[in-house]
Amino acid sequence: MSLVELREQVAEANRGLAAAGLVTLSFGNASGVDRERGVLVIKPSGVACDRLQPEDAVVVSLDDGSVVEGSMRPSSDTPTHLVLYRRFGSIGGVVHTHSPFASAWAQAGQAIPCLGTTHADHFAGPVPVTRPLTGGEIAGDYERETGEVIVETLEDLGIDALHMPAALVASHGPFAWGADAAEAVTNAVALEAVAAMALRTLAIAPEAGPIGDALLARHFGRKHGPNAYYGQPAGS
Amino acid sequence: MSLVELREQVAEANRGLAAAGLVTLSFGNASGVDRERGVLVIKPSGVACDRLQPEDAVVVSLDDGSVVEGSMRPSSDTPTHLVLYRRFGSIGGVVHTHSPFASAWAQAGQAIPCLGTTHADHFAGPVPVTRPLTGGEIAGDYERETGEVIVETLEDLGIDALHMPAALVASHGPFAWGADAAEAVTNAVALEAVAAMALRTLAIAPEAGPIGDALLARHFGRKHGPNAYYGQPAGS
Amino acid sequence: MSLVELREQVAEANRGLAAAGLVTLSFGNASGVDRERGVLVIKPSGVACDRLQPEDAVVVSLDDGSVVEGSMRPSSDTPTHLVLYRRFGSIGGVVHTHSPFASAWAQAGQAIPCLGTTHADHFAGPVPVTRPLTGGEIAGDYERETGEVIVETLEDLGIDALHMPAALVASHGPFAWGADAAEAVTNAVALEAVAAMALRTLAIAPEAGPIGDALLARHFGRKHGPNAYYGQPAGS
Amino acid sequence: MSLVELREQVAEANRGLAAAGLVTLSFGNASGVDRERGVLVIKPSGVACDRLQPEDAVVVSLDDGSVVEGSMRPSSDTPTHLVLYRRFGSIGGVVHTHSPFASAWAQAGQAIPCLGTTHADHFAGPVPVTRPLTGGEIAGDYERETGEVIVETLEDLGIDALHMPAALVASHGPFAWGADAAEAVTNAVALEAVAAMALRTLAIAPEAGPIGDALLARHFGRKHGPNAYYGQPAGS
Repeated sequence: MSLVELREQVAEANRGLAAAGLVTLSFGNASGVDRERGVLVIKPSGVACDRLQPEDAVVVSLDDGSVVEGSMRPSSDTPTHLVLYRRFGSIGGVVHTHSPFASAWAQAGQAIPCLGTTHADHFAGPVPVTRPLTGGEIAGDYERETGEVIVETLEDLGIDALHMPAALVASHGPFAWGADAAEAVTNAVALEAVAAMALRTLAIAPEAGPIGDALLARHFGRKHGPNAYYGQPAGS
Repeated sequence: MSLVELREQVAEANRGLAAAGLVTLSFGNASGVDRERGVLVIKPSGVACDRLQPEDAVVVSLDDGSVVEGSMRPSSDTPTHLVLYRRFGSIGGVVHTHSPFASAWAQAGQAIPCLGTTHADHFAGPVPVTRPLTGGEIAGDYERETGEVIVETLEDLGIDALHMPAALVASHGPFAWGADAAEAVTNAVALEAVAAMALRTLAIAPEAGPIGDALLARHFGRKHGPNAYYGQPAGS
Repeated sequence: MSLVELREQVAEANRGLAAAGLVTLSFGNASGVDRERGVLVIKPSGVACDRLQPEDAVVVSLDDGSVVEGSMRPSSDTPTHLVLYRRFGSIGGVVHTHSPFASAWAQAGQAIPCLGTTHADHFAGPVPVTRPLTGGEIAGDYERETGEVIVETLEDLGIDALHMPAALVASHGPFAWGADAAEAVTNAVALEAVAAMALRTLAIAPEAGPIGDALLARHFGRKHGPNAYYGQPAGS
Repeated sequence: MSLVELREQVAEANRGLAAAGLVTLSFGNASGVDRERGVLVIKPSGVACDRLQPEDAVVVSLDDGSVVEGSMRPSSDTPTHLVLYRRFGSIGGVVHTHSPFASAWAQAGQAIPCLGTTHADHFAGPVPVTRPLTGGEIAGDYERETGEVIVETLEDLGIDALHMPAALVASHGPFAWGADAAEAVTNAVALEAVAAMALRTLAIAPEAGPIGDALLARHFGRKHGPNAYYGQPAGS
């Protein structure tokens, strides 16, 4: 894939976040990676997602975070994206939003329990929440530390990043990722839907518990892995 | 009705689900049946509802579930639709969604109580929720078993499928049906409206009870059955 | 005003209900009255509000409820509108909806308390809820009895209909009215806004009480009566 | 800046409030100030925000509140805007709305706690709520007193108006402000987002507490003050 195509994908992903209602004002950003060229492409800081054009996107070195192409500053969250790409080798796209319901769970400091098949179709278990950052982490290289605490959280679960393609940063909001920028947007949309559904489920039945492992595995397996039978065959 | 017309109805029903806000991503599908030809027409798997064109729809044998026309895989929920058409002889359309509020009731494992006339206009009593599927049912022919547990739930109520044109699959979401695909969409829209209203009613008054049988019968009877007087006379 | 103009006003009011998100499917209707000609103009039964054209509206005798002009059946709620026009001499428009939040209060059987100035700008006190209809009223001339119980509720409050331009019918939903059809729509929109706000206020602070009489009188008086100073001078 | 440009900014701000879903009916207004000319420009009373044109805006003397240009009455809330401009020397724009969630907090009489970084990005602490107005204040120069109680609330906090660019008027709704009318709209949009998020956070975790001072300072400092690094450099 050319860098021109990656710019187009990233611009479309940023616009997709806005179109899905996940981004208010400029609270969000999407990026995509080109591992061969060793760069990521990301939204500029403070620019609204809904109007992002391919030529506005900023190309940043995966190696040292320097700007390779572009006249604007990259998103202030770029160091978080860099950590995720470096540590999760299988991912190709990352998004960050302050979406209304997923952010409420992040602010509550609670993982989103897996209460139904909408959740299980996308996430192989509860969507985890990070521990709070320490004072040192906040005062230091804050955005990089945000990435590190997400990695730490996934490592504690012992799960592949593409099987749990999102995490909530405590007191902050969600990050989601996927095989490319478009899939990261899809996972962010699914996350917001299940965050809202979980809140409402517990409002109806505070005692509602997680779905069983068998149903979770069946639904996650319908869409992921060697026995997937949802959607159309690859290459069709 | 020709198969061309049925394809158009099914495409319009799928787009109608998306337009009504009941479907996020590709979490939903609508189908219609032609009992004379012994086929159902349904959305392909993994395709977004909002752009479905008549020529994309897949024609499936009602008898053995094989694809009769179409180059794409039918919805992975096709076996559920097949069971419903086979067991509910009066229905002509089926829809499945993961709509935000009805799915919350499904995840809570609770029937939606009939708390007002909006509900009674469409459903002749509480909208039931199925029992959880067993481990064997989940591991086996899962989508077919989902249809069977819906049928079992309606049979336990002893009610005609057109008088209770929806059910919630526990930990999953709603299925709705009707005399044709368009009516199934209408019932899914009404279901989501009453699911949201019921949640909010109980937030205001946790002790709110169901409406009386007289009011329920009056409203359901205004729109259904020999004494209906809502809408315009048939054929007018 | 000519009957042609009234038809246009009524069509616009019905479309306004849909545009404001107060009407799902065909759950709602708006009418206007011409007291000189002794007729009301109302939406036909079962027709969606969002597409209503002036020529579709039905003209009904205020005297005996018979259809004066129009080829379709009038709304099944026409007898309710008739009672309100006959008993509230100052009103010129009536609307009925099953709007999401106001209907939740109706289903809860609770008046909407006046918790802030948005409410006080439109309603001179809590928006009342009717008593439940009796079995006899439900089995009898149900839609006319619905009007009678609204009138009874307003009479119990001892308040002018234009000072309390809405009521909730228990287990059903809101009716609103005004000096003409457009003002009835405005009051229905305001009612839905305050119904949602009140639910959320009590979610934050279950002990929140009504605003004081002085603030209520100040805000209602800014917009209504001889000392009103909100908006532009009449005739300007 | 010319008065023509200020009229354009104010018209755009009013339309922006409507486009962001913060204004129902005509419950809201935006203004901008020209301190050199000693005037503010504001929406006329009772006119809908969504259609406001520059030539409709009313120019009012900052000194004595008299109309300098315009054929319509200025917003009935003009005296509140005047007080805020006179007492907060750094601000250039003011908006008032009855937005759904911020008004619910105002009606609850509670400050919005700072539960996450979305909040901290815009407001340097909890968004305060005023004390209730006294009977004398309500009966007297009510709209001017509304401004005074906002100023009193900010003075009690001992905070710069641009560091806490919003307050909730008890039993009423939010006012927000900023360096100009556009920034005031941005702050009103952010306020509504954090008001909704806070309500939902407490629904999930009633015991959720405010974020620590370090995280609050870090996020507020990313966007405000000498060390800000969010967005693009000024003049770029």
